Amino acid sequence: MENTHNFFIPKNNLIGIGSIKDLTNELLKWKLSKTLIVTDKNIISLGYVEMIETMLKNLFISYDIFEGVLHSNPTVSFVEDGLSYFPQGLELRRDYNLIISIGGGTIHDCAKGIAAVATNGGSIIDYEGYNKITKPAIPHIAINTTYSGAELTMFSIITDTSRKVKMVIASPNITPFISVNDPMFTTTMPQDITASSGIDALSHSIESYSAMEASPITDSFALGAVKLIFGYLRRAYENGNDMEAREKMTFASIMAGMAFNNAGLGYVHAMAHQLGGFYNKLHGNYDGILLPYVFEFNSASLQEGKILKLAKAMGEKADSKPEAVEKICNAIKKLGLDIGIPHGLKAMGVKETDLDRLSQNALKDIATFTNPRKGTLEDVIHIYKAAM
Amino acid sequence: MENTHNFFIPKNNLIGIGSIKDLTNELLKWKLSKTLIVTDKNIISLGYVEMIETMLKNLFISYDIFEGVLHSNPTVSFVEDGLSYFPQGLELRRDYNLIISIGGGTIHDCAKGIAAVATNGGSIIDYEGYNKITKPAIPHIAINTTYSGAELTMFSIITDTSRKVKMVIASPNITPFISVNDPMFTTTMPQDITASSGIDALSHSIESYSAMEASPITDSFALGAVKLIFGYLRRAYENGNDMEAREKMTFASIMAGMAFNNAGLGYVHAMAHQLGGFYNKLHGNYDGILLPYVFEFNSASLQEGKILKLAKAMGEKADSKPEAVEKICNAIKKLGLDIGIPHGLKAMGVKETDLDRLSQNALKDIATFTNPRKGTLEDVIHIYKAAM
Ligand SMILES: [Fe+2]
Ligand SMILES: [Fe+2]
Repeated sequence: MENTHNFFIPKNNLIGIGSIKDLTNELLKWKLSKTLIVTDKNIISLGYVEMIETMLKNLFISYDIFEGVLHSNPTVSFVEDGLSYFPQGLELRRDYNLIISIGGGTIHDCAKGIAAVATNGGSIIDYEGYNKITKPAIPHIAINTTYSGAELTMFSIITDTSRKVKMVIASPNITPFISVNDPMFTTTMPQDITASSGIDALSHSIESYSAMEASPITDSFALGAVKLIFGYLRRAYENGNDMEAREKMTFASIMAGMAFNNAGLGYVHAMAHQLGGFYNKLHGNYDGILLPYVFEFNSASLQEGKILKLAKAMGEKADSKPEAVEKICNAIKKLGLDIGIPHGLKAMGVKETDLDRLSQNALKDIATFTNPRKGTLEDVIHIYKAAM
Repeated sequence: MENTHNFFIPKNNLIGIGSIKDLTNELLKWKLSKTLIVTDKNIISLGYVEMIETMLKNLFISYDIFEGVLHSNPTVSFVEDGLSYFPQGLELRRDYNLIISIGGGTIHDCAKGIAAVATNGGSIIDYEGYNKITKPAIPHIAINTTYSGAELTMFSIITDTSRKVKMVIASPNITPFISVNDPMFTTTMPQDITASSGIDALSHSIESYSAMEASPITDSFALGAVKLIFGYLRRAYENGNDMEAREKMTFASIMAGMAFNNAGLGYVHAMAHQLGGFYNKLHGNYDGILLPYVFEFNSASLQEGKILKLAKAMGEKADSKPEAVEKICNAIKKLGLDIGIPHGLKAMGVKETDLDRLSQNALKDIATFTNPRKGTLEDVIHIYKAAM
């Protein structure tokens, strides 16, 4: 029998080339006075913010721009900087009645933090964990430029630099109410971000497919995403203007996001979060490197039929569980090599001497709750070592 | 290239055996004073309404029960009867701040009509067509007992008996805000309703898979649903207490519902709606009978690769398009026979002399908009005749 599930996503998800234009219609439905745009300097230089500014001006909606998301692992101080736009010390801190984030997962996560603290008060640190945010956040529209899935999930990952820990903040209350995935906005992704966020989407698919809370609904999405990623990620990486590949990868990232939002993740993310908190490099690369080793570890707890289906979705033929596990792991590694993911954690600057502390922290990460196989501290250290 | 899409479903979908218990937590989040329960005498006699009454009493939420959904093709007068619970002639007709529908598609569709007219005014007839409902409806929670998918869609099908026409009312504003699919509530479905609403879910899957607005997202759901239906509908039909089969069919109906809510339907539904308006029998049976004939007609406009994948999801091996189309049509007919779906429209009382008028009306139904192949009046008559 299945667990009970709550399939939860934004009610409204605009998808496809040109779908950004449909946002005007959605904005028309709301009485909006003032909007805070959360973004970074790079996204501004690409002209995407100007496009949204024009849209807001045409609707007579005033706005300010917070461009203080300074690097790819958002910190508590970024959230605090964003909150400075909200009058402090008042009972009602709201001033803006809409937040629009434009960018990748980093920017959406930061915007979720700002939106939540602006209405709930306190500090973002107070909300680490599951379901700690009790009041609705400021309504948030997420316009996406990568494959992170963050534009439609209830998760925000914020680094507490004092503890060198990536906090997972998980609450339905921080789910954006509209997500926009226009593949045009992904064509300017640098090659390394295409690779890193593409393999992140693969890890979302495979982790959610393996997760304790997986259901036939999330499995359909996960397998659908895996097929698209193996079919199109190499093409999107090789030629960023290959619109068919960009479009398919956008669908893959949406399906992967919907899958993990509802099935949960596992040790890949629990372990990658710690690396991000310690060394501050691209999240997706950590995921991509760890994925085959965690999958191999988890395979002991997964049914043969499920593993054979996954191999098939990757285009691999296998008749037995061991054969399928081996082919799946090799296919992930091969894909990573082909798109320039570093070949191991050592190449990303991870130090052997940190592995003990990283493993201890990983086991406290809420992504472990849905991992299909429980590991000891030694198991986690062993996986990290294998991935070095 | 794909069209642009808006993937739209209730934000909150409670799923699984025992998931009804999670509804209390959801209700706690809202300041509710008075609820209107929309249901029928049969659902009351099964004890499901009492279960919800207890939940509401424990939360000190008062409620009334409207049990006037009298048969399986809801009419304008059912909606009007439900509206009598709302004080007439006042600027603000709202009195209840929540509607809870408990039952199958008939009951949810009727509740959607009541919820929409209560806030938008006028008559339900004013809202026939796409996107005519401009103001949000009264918040609506749909607790489901069949496989219709109506608990999570933006569609309401209401019969205008004066014209003998099933009106399609389609608007995001009538999407329930919470859907509940607890397979326990499906175990009491009579055998003929299991069959009829089960084959309805199959027609939702195949119609949305073939539809103009299909996307990789809706295709994943449609194929996932097809697999589950061919794997478990016969079992659910043969033994209504087979919980594994009931559970899988619930997932199938949810995935089929999400697929057609976002990809649209086609001639099966355009033609079945007319039969329902004329002869007032079970909607799903009309769908099941028409499905192979419409699919054969539409196959001319569908790509070989897509058709081969569909055949595979049904467990059929085929190497070419014609072979796959034949096997798909036969597999649908075989499934229908095995679960007691009448073997043709004649057996359901359809008269040859009505086919002309039925076909004219079918071509006006909004479900035709997303059908992949445009048909003439003669084509539609021909399909009806083939299905006799
Ligand atoms: Fe990730
Ligand atoms: Fe139907």
